[in-house]
Amino acid sequence: MYFQAMAQCAQALRNLEIWLDKAEQYAGERHFDIGVLMTSRLAPDMKPLIYQVQSACDYVKAGAAWLSGQKRPKHEDTEQTIDDLRARIRKTVTFVESVTEAQYADAAEQRVSLSFAPAGTVLVGPDYLLQMTIPSVYFHLAMAYAVLRHNGVDVGKMDFLGPINWV
Amino acid sequence: MYFQAMAQCAQALRNLEIWLDKAEQYAGERHFDIGVLMTSRLAPDMKPLIYQVQSACDYVKAGAAWLSGQKRPKHEDTEQTIDDLRARIRKTVTFVESVTEAQYADAAEQRVSLSFAPAGTVLVGPDYLLQMTIPSVYFHLAMAYAVLRHNGVDVGKMDFLGPINWV
Repeated sequence: MYFQAMAQCAQALRNLEIWLDKAEQYAGERHFDIGVLMTSRLAPDMKPLIYQVQSACDYVKAGAAWLSGQKRPKHEDTEQTIDDLRARIRKTVTFVESVTEAQYADAAEQRVSLSFAPAGTVLVGPDYLLQMTIPSVYFHLAMAYAVLRHNGVDVGKMDFLGPINWV
Repeated sequence: MYFQAMAQCAQALRNLEIWLDKAEQYAGERHFDIGVLMTSRLAPDMKPLIYQVQSACDYVKAGAAWLSGQKRPKHEDTEQTIDDLRARIRKTVTFVESVTEAQYADAAEQRVSLSFAPAGTVLVGPDYLLQMTIPSVYFHLAMAYAVLRHNGVDVGKMDFLGPINWV
């Protein structure tokens, strides 16, 4: 389930790429600089879209690393343009896809030390996945989506969900 | 994992109750009718906050029912006030908490027929949980959160995550 859950997080980042494509098309049609959307936010004391994308990527990367017992690759938060964000998404997805199902064998027993955890505490694998990784990934993705939606980009819930494996 | 995932979805609804409390307090301080926030949205062609809460509740309820092989309880979408929404959340949480871990024993083999699925197709348990239930729950919760955040309610990411099981 850990492997499948992280694969789904990677898919959620791929879905985000589609929203960025739609945002770029919208900016082109309306003749405004796509950079306006990259620095938009829903409230003045909220981080802008670029940060939401960086943060979603970071939680996906960290989830795949911690739950497979690996060191997290370092991705600097230097993105400024929509193409920078696309590159960030792709290197995150590439990392997640490099992790095999076998590498998640001990995921449930991993003890995860987060910089913002209360001193001396950790999260165990299932809680880390369900209480931190998954809600954080979807939170930051949804904030990016909400900024675009609020500004008129033609994204809808099916763009949020992405491909569904109907059988 | 299915039991834990659905328990976390129920917790996410409890977190939403805290945001509603904050929204009510904010409306009181600013002397406006809380009903204004209940019918707010981020874009004119987006459903209002009341719908986002109903929908989050429905995906949680449906997830717990389908994955435990039970019929979904029927909850009519008649809510109009913040107290109506609180009642909707509570009856959803009560249902989820009535499902025991043992009842999820066959969750991975469940075949889920959704009204909006392509004709003749189903979702199997793991895909239903990871591609439909979890992202839909967090999507609608995040849209409710975003409406409140955009309108000045003092909610932050830790309110979105709620209690974390640090050990």
